[in-house]
Amino acid sequence: MNMSTYTDIAVIGGVAAGPKTAAVVARRLPDKAVTVFQREKYISYGTCGLPYFASGDIDSFQELIATSYDIPRDPEFFRRTKGVEVQNETEVTSIDPTARTLTVKHLGDSSVEEYTYDTLVLATGAIPAPPPFPCDTSENIRPFTRPDDAISFRKAAQTGQLGSAVIIGGGFIGCELAEACAGLWGIETTLVEMQSSLLPYVLDPEMARLAQNEMERQGVTVRLSSQVESVTANEDGPTVSLKGGETLTADFVFLCLGVTPEVSLAKQCGLKLGETGGILVDSHMRTSNPNIYAGGDCVESFNAVSGRKMYIPMGSLANRHGRVIAENIAGNECEFPAATGAFLVKVFERNVGAVGLSEAQAKRDNIPHRAVWGSFGDKPDYYPESSSLVAKLIYNPESLGLLGLQAVGEGDICRRIDVMSAMLRQRARVDDLLDFEQGYAPPYSDAMDPLYHLACMAQAQERAGIGFTTPQLAYDGAAYQWLDVREDYEIETFPVPTPDGGELIKIALNDLREQLDQFDPKRPIVVVCQRGPRAYQAARILKNNGFGQVDVLGGGAEAADWPKQEKK
Amino acid sequence: MNMSTYTDIAVIGGVAAGPKTAAVVARRLPDKAVTVFQREKYISYGTCGLPYFASGDIDSFQELIATSYDIPRDPEFFRRTKGVEVQNETEVTSIDPTARTLTVKHLGDSSVEEYTYDTLVLATGAIPAPPPFPCDTSENIRPFTRPDDAISFRKAAQTGQLGSAVIIGGGFIGCELAEACAGLWGIETTLVEMQSSLLPYVLDPEMARLAQNEMERQGVTVRLSSQVESVTANEDGPTVSLKGGETLTADFVFLCLGVTPEVSLAKQCGLKLGETGGILVDSHMRTSNPNIYAGGDCVESFNAVSGRKMYIPMGSLANRHGRVIAENIAGNECEFPAATGAFLVKVFERNVGAVGLSEAQAKRDNIPHRAVWGSFGDKPDYYPESSSLVAKLIYNPESLGLLGLQAVGEGDICRRIDVMSAMLRQRARVDDLLDFEQGYAPPYSDAMDPLYHLACMAQAQERAGIGFTTPQLAYDGAAYQWLDVREDYEIETFPVPTPDGGELIKIALNDLREQLDQFDPKRPIVVVCQRGPRAYQAARILKNNGFGQVDVLGGGAEAADWPKQEKK
Repeated sequence: MNMSTYTDIAVIGGVAAGPKTAAVVARRLPDKAVTVFQREKYISYGTCGLPYFASGDIDSFQELIATSYDIPRDPEFFRRTKGVEVQNETEVTSIDPTARTLTVKHLGDSSVEEYTYDTLVLATGAIPAPPPFPCDTSENIRPFTRPDDAISFRKAAQTGQLGSAVIIGGGFIGCELAEACAGLWGIETTLVEMQSSLLPYVLDPEMARLAQNEMERQGVTVRLSSQVESVTANEDGPTVSLKGGETLTADFVFLCLGVTPEVSLAKQCGLKLGETGGILVDSHMRTSNPNIYAGGDCVESFNAVSGRKMYIPMGSLANRHGRVIAENIAGNECEFPAATGAFLVKVFERNVGAVGLSEAQAKRDNIPHRAVWGSFGDKPDYYPESSSLVAKLIYNPESLGLLGLQAVGEGDICRRIDVMSAMLRQRARVDDLLDFEQGYAPPYSDAMDPLYHLACMAQAQERAGIGFTTPQLAYDGAAYQWLDVREDYEIETFPVPTPDGGELIKIALNDLREQLDQFDPKRPIVVVCQRGPRAYQAARILKNNGFGQVDVLGGGAEAADWPKQEKK
Repeated sequence: MNMSTYTDIAVIGGVAAGPKTAAVVARRLPDKAVTVFQREKYISYGTCGLPYFASGDIDSFQELIATSYDIPRDPEFFRRTKGVEVQNETEVTSIDPTARTLTVKHLGDSSVEEYTYDTLVLATGAIPAPPPFPCDTSENIRPFTRPDDAISFRKAAQTGQLGSAVIIGGGFIGCELAEACAGLWGIETTLVEMQSSLLPYVLDPEMARLAQNEMERQGVTVRLSSQVESVTANEDGPTVSLKGGETLTADFVFLCLGVTPEVSLAKQCGLKLGETGGILVDSHMRTSNPNIYAGGDCVESFNAVSGRKMYIPMGSLANRHGRVIAENIAGNECEFPAATGAFLVKVFERNVGAVGLSEAQAKRDNIPHRAVWGSFGDKPDYYPESSSLVAKLIYNPESLGLLGLQAVGEGDICRRIDVMSAMLRQRARVDDLLDFEQGYAPPYSDAMDPLYHLACMAQAQERAGIGFTTPQLAYDGAAYQWLDVREDYEIETFPVPTPDGGELIKIALNDLREQLDQFDPKRPIVVVCQRGPRAYQAARILKNNGFGQVDVLGGGAEAADWPKQEKK
């Protein structure tokens, strides 16, 4: 072994949090030596872009490692531009936190070197979660988290070796990969999810259903509630055996089972781990050893809404962790607050996003919760490029505090997720949404924002007792009077299936006041329209005329495209 | 005169605040009679859509008065669906606030009727500001605020009578109308503005310049600092005489001189007006007569950032005023908070928006202010559909409180305007932008939001003394060393003009550390790159190596497309 090399700050990990920490520290403390150790060949690559490189949306892999001015982010770039030393293709094999030494192995020539450091930063990231079923390893059975995974995918797709794929796991990566497969490449794609809906940890079922509908419309076969028993590498290609005996075969099987924090070095240093398995850090991103910081996908976060621990592997958080660590190392007191978990994911032509808690999460955390959901245009109806979105607002009915937002649609959901994220950080209430003043002009937005409408709906639900939440399949058809207040042409072109036994009454809103005698005052009424506002007005008319239980079908016909076979 | 007709709630004005108030009151208090008096034929039309009907983006005028399900919003619709009585083409000619009576004149047959009321709501809107110069009236010299204006425009354009237009006034309507003229119809268009930049009351000059560049790129002739002396209707068509002797002729002259609150009935009722000329209302939208409410474009608002009075005629506020008035009439205590003034306007292919205070407004209100500005991609550089935007953040350097945001570009500015609007309402600080967690996925956003970068720049400006604000033309060229740290290919394709006498040094960022001896340590340095981040890194390197005054050219080359002739 060589003599020990000294570096003031040693950073382990070279994708997001690591390089960010290193670059900011080097700017703040130009006289200190900063070294990044990265096991892979590539540094600071756009890992979130891998699915889009796979899909062909991004032409060349170089784009993921290049700066905006086409200089590759390689060790030379980091040395010359950032003043940071990068050791890539170098694995840190052990750490002595007391002596403050690292043993590193250069993977190219297997040589071993020792470093001493003053401050250590762990940005070791995440690794694919191990399959909870027997699973062969082969070139054609693989996760999808690393550059090599994306490069192999692209090669196989381009050379025609990838005609069919089974993706196991309906989370973010699984959904993005399904689009990459079925979209540009026309690969016969089956998405297998163990839970009963896609993106189950972030979306409630009725919102996930809208993403699933789009998947299916684009030709992806979605298999929900499907437990994998094994994946085997047969001669004819990989085979997925499902519980119940069915098997699926395909050219490739992708294991998109989520990721788990890479904490082996943290454990070796004796650092405390949190309840979610990530490295425990304080608000300054310090681990249980005050001389060691950690950030990025290897740490545990706090949820800003619930106050509970959560694990959120997101590039947007990792980069911000990096800056906070660097400021603290440089002596500038800096905290990383709790996270709202804002996310977006593109599912073909529908935009999908959420922030804060879902109803399921609120329930799990014993937080009182209620929801409203509706369909909205993202611009005035008269503007030619208006698109729809379905949004669901979750709030605490006791405090009227905001808990979360989910949105799916072709319309602009990003603004609403972003605003809600800012609102949740400020612990805002339903009333604050009424006061929120969106940027307004017809090419961009309607005079009243969907968030405003959702807040009005929440108020109506709490004050006037009009329900806004339930998809129609939750209803026992026979118990309800089912009122469609749309015009005939709408009912014809966009029928809403009535639950079995449900009696359908069609009265256009304009005529409702004159036909109230058509209803049995003793039976509850569910009102549906195209998006929701007319149904709400109808519900108010009915309530004002003494009818008891009146619900609005959340989201209206636009959110009601639940296939018949889904009925329970 | 007939016997008096009684209505519980009388609403004067039928565009936005009026119908909204009426519809909500009728839902909350179904037993009360609600009557809306509207002078025009149309009610509740999308007044903000008029420029887009004129441009042809919106096919038929009916779309502006129809609901999303194609039912026209006419008196019958209001009666049947909303439970509201509408008297259109009816002018309220006098009010007796003590007796609570209104005299109305039906414009169709000139018949006169008297109403008594319990509660009065003024939603009288705004009228075009009178020209501050002698101005003939004719069919071809007209404002552009009413349906008839848009219908005439469209007719003239379609029949070829509108080959050239002069638009006087470079505010919102003027800019929207310029796009309608030059965009679809190819009308030879001249936009005349008295101030030295477009949208002068909401954008600072360097941001307005970016909107102007787009106007000019699309063929609009923009005449700034041009004072109109008169507009005359000659035989050959209207003529605009400018101070200095020049005249402009065109088929049509549009007077887009802004609007002024319509307060003649308010004055007649003895209501107090505010310092901006709008009706003075309290936070419950009550006027100085507690029995009379007012909302929409006829009232004065509070600025949430400065705490000062302001006049903001915006459809997004008017609708919200309506709901607040209705809730208060119904006995549900409800306040309308101060406004942030969020706006968006489309200028051909560039999106333009702002919220809060501009630097000019902050200066006028004696609020300490400083700014940073930069160019950003709205998505990761590797994602194929990434577009640029230039954004400027204004903050208070003493408190680090946020004051405002301006943004111009082809990229998605809406999210950022919306988030800043929410932040300003919460009196957030620069630090809060660092904590803001945007929805993130490559098809929608980069891992770090432009708002995050702006906050980092503000911190660097305050802590490290690196300036980020000044367009290059503000520099005395000879006094500075001018450093371009871009790659050669960028400098060639996108040169940045150096102020006269400015010495240009070209060193790519990657090479800077090795060539620091090229600089005179006694002279200040200005650094430019494509968007800003490299210049910032270069400035840090220079600062860390002992150079004194180092500025970053705000917005980089992408924001520096100031034509040579603009130099002073």
